[in-house]
Amino acid sequence: MEIFYAKEAAGSKVFLDQEESVHCVRVLRHHVGDEIVVVDGMGTMMRCRLTDDSPKGACAEIMESSCGWGGHDYSLTMAVCPTKNNDRFEWFVEKATELGVDVIAPVIGERSERKVFKTERSRKIALSAMKQSLKAKLPVIEEPVTVKDFIASAGSGIKMICYCFEGETLRRSVEDVLKGVPKGAKITIMIGPEGDFSPEEAQQALENGFIPVHLGPSRLRTETAAVTATTAVYLHFIE
Amino acid sequence: MEIFYAKEAAGSKVFLDQEESVHCVRVLRHHVGDEIVVVDGMGTMMRCRLTDDSPKGACAEIMESSCGWGGHDYSLTMAVCPTKNNDRFEWFVEKATELGVDVIAPVIGERSERKVFKTERSRKIALSAMKQSLKAKLPVIEEPVTVKDFIASAGSGIKMICYCFEGETLRRSVEDVLKGVPKGAKITIMIGPEGDFSPEEAQQALENGFIPVHLGPSRLRTETAAVTATTAVYLHFIE
Repeated sequence: MEIFYAKEAAGSKVFLDQEESVHCVRVLRHHVGDEIVVVDGMGTMMRCRLTDDSPKGACAEIMESSCGWGGHDYSLTMAVCPTKNNDRFEWFVEKATELGVDVIAPVIGERSERKVFKTERSRKIALSAMKQSLKAKLPVIEEPVTVKDFIASAGSGIKMICYCFEGETLRRSVEDVLKGVPKGAKITIMIGPEGDFSPEEAQQALENGFIPVHLGPSRLRTETAAVTATTAVYLHFIE
Repeated sequence: MEIFYAKEAAGSKVFLDQEESVHCVRVLRHHVGDEIVVVDGMGTMMRCRLTDDSPKGACAEIMESSCGWGGHDYSLTMAVCPTKNNDRFEWFVEKATELGVDVIAPVIGERSERKVFKTERSRKIALSAMKQSLKAKLPVIEEPVTVKDFIASAGSGIKMICYCFEGETLRRSVEDVLKGVPKGAKITIMIGPEGDFSPEEAQQALENGFIPVHLGPSRLRTETAAVTATTAVYLHFIE
């Protein structure tokens, strides 16, 4: 099933941007009258009929729409330190989008290998993965902030920090923290860089209500840990 | 921590092959007398002292060894249909190795996009991931066989087949199947191609004791499904 993405809708019509229009009309060779499926990135899937097949700006009439298409029963923010190798972080973005994630917040830690991060490629990966996995809600990829700033503004809900060192505070498993957590819960998980969070960052997180968690005995790369944590949440809610 | 791999050991000595020797001596500049950590790919980690620093064939004396280093409490075989794009399958090999897997069996289904598969690159990825994740046991990457041949020779233990279509038989979650399963269990999970298993393959699997499972509501790529299933097993045993 081929899905199109349209940010813009007015009344009963949707407008595909140039990239989507070219794909729809030139690559897939759709014509006026064809039925196409369009998502708006906010959770709504629309069955449409093409009314204008211009490759510069196609347009379609909405015949029916459904909200929460391909959605999930929780709100998940993954705050992850960007990896030295961009491909690895993008692999995490793609996999988290397929499984289910709402916000991906790149966070720069004291020990991060990568201090600069460009969100554009990750946003393209998320868009593509949303369409390929038949979801209608586009994960938000935030601009990077420091770990400390993220912790300070993390807000409410269940917050977890995943670090490797064994400190004084006992780390729990993600599943253990999620026991009894109801559907619709807001969950935030922070994953540190390869060099781990600094003791100061971990301390600040604990003081701000972050629960320390581990991801089992295996020594996982940053992006693997991020996908594993995303999967732990996903699997918890499918029972 | 830098880990070296040595298939060959004789008495109290280990021998690094050329590739490992070059890395040890030329790249990392180790000298006679240096302490190095060597794994044998069969589960044993050895603390050694370099006795010969030739870049063509280094040699080290074993000072102490420990079995089951970085191991896990179950035996997992992942039978996965190779993806059209090799990179994606290799991501799965790397991530499964980091988490914990014993055998990766590429299986060619009726609806597989890829009918030919070369194991060499996957074996290199597994070796590299084993070392990076501080494990001593190398996952076995089998030569590809057909899905039907794999099912016929799958042997004992808990066997699961993950397909997407909704048939007559109710699919359970992996976690549900694993409830009460003891440590040391032998587990096999088969993941189908993007086009899914054929009804005949699924039927043959059921007749051969494979339990039908799903991986939740999200529509996952083949390699994502494979990593998700591997993660479901990993997370089950960390409780």
